[in-house]
Amino acid sequence: MKAAVFLLLALLVPAWHAGAQCIIDNVVDLKVQAAISSIVSTTLAKAKLLCQDVSARGALVTCPTDYKPTGCACGMGCGSWDIRSDSTCHCQCGGIDWTAARCCKIGLQ
Amino acid sequence: MKAAVFLLLALLVPAWHAGAQCIIDNVVDLKVQAAISSIVSTTLAKAKLLCQDVSARGALVTCPTDYKPTGCACGMGCGSWDIRSDSTCHCQCGGIDWTAARCCKIGLQ
Amino acid sequence: MKAAVFLLLALLVPAWHAGAQCIIDNVVDLKVQAAISSIVSTTLAKAKLLCQDVSARGALVTCPTDYKPTGCACGMGCGSWDIRSDSTCHCQCGGIDWTAARCCKIGLQ
Repeated sequence: MKAAVFLLLALLVPAWHAGAQCIIDNVVDLKVQAAISSIVSTTLAKAKLLCQDVSARGALVTCPTDYKPTGCACGMGCGSWDIRSDSTCHCQCGGIDWTAARCCKIGLQ
Repeated sequence: MKAAVFLLLALLVPAWHAGAQCIIDNVVDLKVQAAISSIVSTTLAKAKLLCQDVSARGALVTCPTDYKPTGCACGMGCGSWDIRSDSTCHCQCGGIDWTAARCCKIGLQ
Repeated sequence: MKAAVFLLLALLVPAWHAGAQCIIDNVVDLKVQAAISSIVSTTLAKAKLLCQDVSARGALVTCPTDYKPTGCACGMGCGSWDIRSDSTCHCQCGGIDWTAARCCKIGLQ
Protein backbone atom coordinates (compact mmCIF):
# COMPACT_ATOMS: atom_id res chain seq x y z
CA MET A 1 0.00 0.00 0.00
CA LYS A 2 2.70 2.50 1.03
CA ALA A 3 4.66 1.60 -2.08
CA ALA A 4 1.63 2.13 -4.27
CA VAL A 5 1.03 5.64 -2.91
CA PHE A 6 4.67 6.62 -3.37
CA LEU A 7 4.66 5.17 -6.85
CA LEU A 8 1.55 7.18 -7.64
CA LEU A 9 3.12 10.40 -6.34
CA ALA A 10 6.43 9.66 -8.01
CA LEU A 11 4.64 9.34 -11.32
CA LEU A 12 2.26 12.23 -10.83
CA VAL A 13 4.64 14.86 -9.58
CA PRO A 14 7.07 15.17 -12.51
CA ALA A 15 4.35 14.83 -15.14
CA TRP A 16 2.30 17.47 -13.43
CA HIS A 17 5.28 19.72 -13.03
CA ALA A 18 6.12 19.59 -16.72
CA GLY A 19 2.49 20.15 -17.65
CA ALA A 20 2.24 23.15 -15.33
CA GLN A 21 5.35 24.70 -16.86
CA CYS A 22 3.88 24.39 -20.33
CA ILE A 23 0.63 25.98 -19.17
CA ILE A 24 2.52 28.76 -17.42
CA ASP A 25 4.65 29.35 -20.51
CA ASN A 26 1.65 29.59 -22.76
CA VAL A 27 -0.35 31.78 -20.40
CA VAL A 28 2.60 34.12 -20.00
CA ASP A 29 3.23 34.19 -23.74
CA LEU A 30 -0.36 35.04 -24.50
CA LYS A 31 -0.55 37.66 -21.79
CA VAL A 32 2.73 39.27 -22.78
CA GLN A 33 1.79 39.32 -26.45
CA ALA A 34 -1.57 40.89 -25.66
CA ALA A 35 0.13 43.41 -23.42
CA ILE A 36 2.65 44.24 -26.13
CA SER A 37 -0.05 44.98 -28.67
CA SER A 38 -1.75 47.39 -26.32
CA ILE A 39 1.56 48.90 -25.18
CA VAL A 40 2.55 49.86 -28.69
CA SER A 41 -0.62 51.88 -29.22
CA THR A 42 -0.82 53.18 -25.65
CA THR A 43 2.79 54.33 -25.63
CA LEU A 44 2.57 55.99 -28.99
CA ALA A 45 -0.71 57.66 -28.11
CA LYS A 46 1.06 59.32 -25.19
CA ALA A 47 4.10 60.30 -27.21
CA LYS A 48 3.67 63.84 -28.51
CA LEU A 49 5.76 66.47 -30.19
CA LEU A 50 6.31 69.15 -27.59
CA CYS A 51 7.36 72.43 -29.15
CA GLN A 52 8.13 75.97 -28.11
CA ASP A 53 9.38 79.17 -29.70
CA VAL A 54 12.43 81.00 -28.46
CA SER A 55 13.71 84.27 -29.83
CA ALA A 56 16.55 86.63 -29.12
CA ARG A 57 18.06 89.85 -30.40
CA GLY A 58 20.81 89.41 -32.96
CA ALA A 59 21.48 86.62 -35.43
CA LEU A 60 21.67 83.64 -33.05
CA VAL A 61 19.30 81.84 -30.70
CA THR A 62 19.70 78.46 -29.01
CA CYS A 63 16.98 75.91 -28.15
CA PRO A 64 16.52 74.80 -24.51
CA THR A 65 18.23 71.56 -23.42
CA ASP A 66 16.72 68.44 -25.02
CA TYR A 67 14.89 70.49 -27.65
CA LYS A 68 15.97 70.47 -31.28
CA PRO A 69 15.40 73.32 -33.73
CA THR A 70 13.01 72.25 -36.54
CA GLY A 71 12.94 75.63 -38.28
CA CYS A 72 14.14 79.21 -37.87
CA ALA A 73 12.64 82.66 -38.48
CA CYS A 74 14.56 85.89 -38.92
CA GLY A 75 13.85 89.59 -38.63
CA MET A 76 13.87 91.89 -41.69
CA GLY A 77 11.88 89.31 -43.69
CA CYS A 78 15.02 87.19 -44.08
CA GLY A 79 14.55 83.49 -44.95
CA SER A 80 18.23 82.48 -45.16
CA TRP A 81 19.34 80.54 -42.10
CA ASP A 82 21.30 77.53 -40.96
CA ILE A 83 21.50 75.47 -37.78
CA ARG A 84 24.70 75.23 -35.80
CA SER A 85 25.66 72.36 -33.49
CA ASP A 86 22.18 70.85 -33.91
CA SER A 87 20.93 73.42 -31.40
CA THR A 88 21.29 77.01 -32.59
CA CYS A 89 19.46 78.99 -35.27
CA HIS A 90 21.65 81.41 -37.22
CA CYS A 91 20.14 84.04 -39.53
CA GLN A 92 22.45 84.91 -42.41
CA CYS A 93 21.22 88.30 -43.67
CA GLY A 94 23.38 91.27 -42.70
CA GLY A 95 22.40 93.35 -39.68
CA ILE A 96 19.70 90.92 -38.49
CA ASP A 97 17.70 92.40 -35.58
CA TRP A 98 16.08 89.24 -34.19
CA THR A 99 16.23 85.46 -34.63
CA ALA A 100 13.65 82.90 -33.54
CA ALA A 101 13.84 79.11 -33.31
CA ARG A 102 11.02 76.62 -33.36
CA CYS A 103 12.23 73.99 -30.85
CA CYS A 104 10.70 70.52 -30.46
CA LYS A 105 11.23 67.29 -28.54
CA ILE A 106 9.37 64.04 -27.97
CA GLY A 107 7.56 63.89 -24.66
CA LEU A 108 4.53 62.68 -22.77
CA GLN A 109 1.37 64.71 -22.85
CA MET B 1 -0.37 4.46 7.43
CA LYS B 2 -3.12 7.07 6.91
CA ALA B 3 -1.18 9.45 9.13
CA ALA B 4 1.97 8.91 7.10
CA VAL B 5 0.24 9.81 3.82
CA PHE B 6 -1.29 12.97 5.27
CA LEU B 7 2.06 13.92 6.77
CA LEU B 8 3.67 13.43 3.41
CA LEU B 9 1.09 15.60 1.67
CA ALA B 10 1.18 18.21 4.42
CA LEU B 11 4.93 18.52 3.93
CA LEU B 12 4.90 18.32 0.16
CA VAL B 13 2.14 20.75 -0.66
CA PRO B 14 3.50 23.98 0.88
CA ALA B 15 7.05 23.29 -0.26
CA TRP B 16 5.89 22.56 -3.73
CA HIS B 17 3.68 25.60 -3.74
CA ALA B 18 6.52 27.91 -2.77
CA GLY B 19 8.80 26.29 -5.34
CA ALA B 20 6.23 26.72 -8.08
CA GLN B 21 5.79 30.39 -7.24
CA CYS B 22 9.52 30.96 -7.54
CA ILE B 23 9.63 29.20 -10.86
CA ILE B 24 6.63 31.18 -12.10
CA ASP B 25 8.18 34.42 -10.91
CA ASN B 26 11.41 33.74 -12.70
CA VAL B 27 9.78 32.53 -15.89
CA VAL B 28 7.55 35.61 -15.96
CA ASP B 29 10.47 37.92 -15.21
CA LEU B 30 12.57 36.47 -17.97
CA LYS B 31 9.72 36.51 -20.45
CA VAL B 32 8.70 40.05 -19.57
CA GLN B 33 12.26 41.30 -19.77
CA ALA B 34 12.76 39.68 -23.14
CA ALA B 35 9.48 41.14 -24.32
CA ILE B 36 10.46 44.60 -23.09
CA SER B 37 13.69 44.59 -25.06
CA SER B 38 11.88 43.74 -28.23
CA ILE B 39 9.03 46.15 -27.51
CA VAL B 40 11.35 49.12 -27.23
CA SER B 41 12.77 48.57 -30.68
CA THR B 42 9.51 47.39 -32.23
CA THR B 43 7.55 50.35 -30.90
CA LEU B 44 10.12 52.90 -31.92
CA ALA B 45 10.50 51.34 -35.34
CA LYS B 46 6.78 51.96 -35.89
CA ALA B 47 6.85 55.50 -34.52
CA LYS B 48 7.26 57.96 -37.35
CA LEU B 49 7.05 61.66 -37.87
CA LEU B 50 3.92 62.23 -39.90
CA CYS B 51 3.92 65.62 -41.59
CA GLN B 52 1.78 67.62 -43.96
CA ASP B 53 1.75 71.10 -45.45
CA VAL B 54 -1.22 73.41 -45.09
CA SER B 55 -1.49 76.84 -46.65
CA ALA B 56 -4.03 79.62 -46.79
CA ARG B 57 -4.50 83.09 -48.16
CA GLY B 58 -3.51 85.88 -45.82
CA ALA B 59 -1.02 85.95 -42.96
CA LEU B 60 -2.36 83.11 -40.81
CA VAL B 61 -2.76 79.35 -41.18
CA THR B 62 -3.51 76.74 -38.52
CA CYS B 63 -2.34 73.12 -38.36
CA PRO B 64 -4.90 70.29 -38.22
CA THR B 65 -5.81 68.90 -34.78
CA ASP B 66 -2.95 66.97 -33.12
CA TYR B 67 -0.41 68.39 -35.55
CA LYS B 68 2.17 70.95 -34.43
CA PRO B 69 3.78 73.53 -36.70
CA THR B 70 7.54 72.87 -37.03
CA GLY B 71 8.19 75.71 -39.48
CA CYS B 72 6.38 78.35 -41.56
CA ALA B 73 6.72 79.73 -45.07
CA CYS B 74 5.37 83.04 -46.31
CA GLY B 75 4.48 84.61 -49.63
CA MET B 76 6.50 87.56 -51.03
CA GLY B 77 9.77 85.85 -50.06
CA CYS B 78 9.18 86.77 -46.44
CA GLY B 79 11.08 84.80 -43.77
CA SER B 80 9.79 86.59 -40.67
CA TRP B 81 7.17 84.55 -38.83
CA ASP B 82 6.06 83.42 -35.42
CA ILE B 83 3.82 80.67 -34.08
CA ARG B 84 0.68 81.52 -32.11
CA SER B 85 -0.99 79.24 -29.57
CA ASP B 86 1.38 76.40 -30.54
CA SER B 87 -0.81 75.80 -33.59
CA THR B 88 -0.88 78.76 -36.00
CA CYS B 89 1.74 80.17 -38.34
CA HIS B 90 1.76 83.95 -38.61
CA CYS B 91 3.73 85.75 -41.30
CA GLN B 92 4.86 89.19 -40.22
CA CYS B 93 5.64 91.09 -43.43
CA GLY B 94 3.03 93.64 -44.49
CA GLY B 95 0.41 92.67 -47.06
CA ILE B 96 1.29 88.97 -47.05
CA ASP B 97 -0.60 87.05 -49.77
CA TRP B 98 -0.20 83.48 -48.50
CA THR B 99 1.06 81.61 -45.45
CA ALA B 100 2.01 77.93 -45.20
CA ALA B 101 2.69 75.73 -42.20
CA ARG B 102 4.69 72.54 -42.03
CA CYS B 103 2.68 70.45 -39.53
CA CYS B 104 3.94 67.26 -37.87
CA LYS B 105 2.88 64.72 -35.26
CA ILE B 106 4.10 61.36 -34.00
CA GLY B 107 2.15 58.41 -35.38
CA LEU B 108 2.27 54.84 -36.60
CA GLN B 109 3.29 54.12 -40.15
CA MET C 1 -7.76 3.07 2.73
CA LYS C 2 -6.63 2.99 -0.91
CA ALA C 3 -9.98 4.44 -1.93
CA ALA C 4 -9.62 7.25 0.60
CA VAL C 5 -6.23 8.29 -0.78
CA PHE C 6 -7.46 8.34 -4.36
CA LEU C 7 -10.53 10.28 -3.30
CA LEU C 8 -8.32 12.79 -1.57
CA LEU C 9 -6.12 13.19 -4.64
CA ALA C 10 -9.12 13.30 -6.96
CA LEU C 11 -10.50 16.18 -4.94
CA LEU C 12 -7.21 17.97 -4.42
CA VAL C 13 -5.81 17.91 -7.92
CA PRO C 14 -8.49 19.86 -9.83
CA ALA C 15 -9.02 22.38 -7.03
CA TRP C 16 -5.30 22.93 -6.77
CA HIS C 17 -4.97 23.21 -10.49
CA ALA C 18 -7.63 25.91 -10.70
CA GLY C 19 -6.10 27.76 -7.78
CA ALA C 20 -2.66 27.67 -9.32
CA GLN C 21 -3.99 29.07 -12.58
CA CYS C 22 -5.60 31.96 -10.72
CA ILE C 23 -2.39 32.69 -8.87
CA ILE C 24 -0.40 32.49 -12.08
CA ASP C 25 -2.86 34.77 -13.85
CA ASN C 26 -2.67 37.35 -11.10
CA VAL C 27 1.09 37.22 -10.78
CA VAL C 28 1.49 37.58 -14.52
CA ASP C 29 -1.02 40.42 -14.66
CA LEU C 30 0.73 42.33 -11.89
CA LYS C 31 4.14 41.76 -13.37
CA VAL C 32 3.07 42.69 -16.86
CA GLN C 33 1.29 45.82 -15.65
CA ALA C 34 4.34 46.89 -13.67
CA ALA C 35 6.52 46.21 -16.66
CA ILE C 36 4.22 48.22 -18.91
CA SER C 37 4.39 51.28 -16.69
CA SER C 38 8.14 51.25 -16.75
CA ILE C 39 8.27 50.46 -20.45
CA VAL C 40 6.22 53.51 -21.37
CA SER C 41 8.64 55.86 -19.66
CA THR C 42 11.75 53.91 -20.60
CA THR C 43 10.80 53.71 -24.25
CA LEU C 44 9.85 57.35 -24.50
CA ALA C 45 12.97 58.43 -22.67
CA LYS C 46 15.00 56.75 -25.39
CA ALA C 47 12.94 58.16 -28.24
CA LYS C 48 14.54 61.34 -29.54
CA LEU C 49 14.16 63.65 -32.46
CA LEU C 50 17.21 63.08 -34.63
CA CYS C 51 17.78 65.96 -37.04
CA GLN C 52 20.29 67.01 -39.66
CA ASP C 53 20.68 69.78 -42.19
CA VAL C 54 21.16 69.12 -45.89
CA SER C 55 21.73 71.77 -48.50
CA ALA C 56 22.33 71.89 -52.21
CA ARG C 57 22.83 74.37 -55.02
CA GLY C 58 19.64 75.38 -56.82
CA ALA C 59 16.05 75.48 -55.62
CA LEU C 60 15.61 71.86 -54.53
CA VAL C 61 17.06 69.62 -51.85
CA THR C 62 15.83 66.22 -50.63
CA CYS C 63 16.07 64.76 -47.10
CA PRO C 64 17.87 61.43 -46.55
CA THR C 65 15.74 58.26 -46.46
CA ASP C 66 13.50 58.06 -43.37
CA TYR C 67 13.99 61.75 -42.58
CA LYS C 68 11.19 64.26 -43.05
CA PRO C 69 11.69 67.96 -43.78
CA THR C 70 10.38 70.10 -40.88
CA GLY C 71 11.42 73.44 -42.37
CA CYS C 72 13.35 74.91 -45.29
CA ALA C 73 15.80 77.78 -45.76
CA CYS C 74 16.65 79.52 -49.02
CA GLY C 75 19.45 81.64 -50.39
CA MET C 76 18.98 85.33 -51.26
CA GLY C 77 17.03 85.87 -48.03
CA CYS C 78 14.00 84.14 -49.49
CA GLY C 79 11.37 82.77 -47.09
CA SER C 80 8.90 81.39 -49.63
CA TRP C 81 9.09 77.62 -49.92
CA ASP C 82 7.02 74.47 -50.12
CA ILE C 83 7.64 70.77 -49.58
CA ARG C 84 7.24 68.29 -52.42
CA SER C 85 6.47 64.59 -52.00
CA ASP C 86 6.88 64.92 -48.22
CA SER C 87 10.64 64.81 -48.78
CA THR C 88 11.96 67.73 -50.81
CA CYS C 89 12.35 71.42 -49.98
CA HIS C 90 11.61 73.78 -52.85
CA CYS C 91 12.49 77.46 -52.69
CA GLN C 92 10.17 79.62 -54.78
CA CYS C 93 12.03 82.89 -55.37
CA GLY C 94 13.50 83.31 -58.85
CA GLY C 95 17.16 82.46 -59.44
CA ILE C 96 17.67 80.82 -56.05
CA ASP C 97 21.35 79.94 -55.44
CA TRP C 98 20.99 77.43 -52.60
CA THR C 99 18.30 75.53 -50.70
CA ALA C 100 18.60 73.85 -47.30
CA ALA C 101 16.30 71.41 -45.54
CA ARG C 102 16.03 70.70 -41.83
CA CYS C 103 15.38 66.93 -41.79
CA CYS C 104 14.20 64.99 -38.72
CA LYS C 105 13.14 61.49 -37.72
CA ILE C 106 12.35 59.63 -34.54
CA GLY C 107 15.16 57.43 -33.33
CA LEU C 108 17.05 56.01 -30.38
CA GLN C 109 19.75 58.05 -28.78
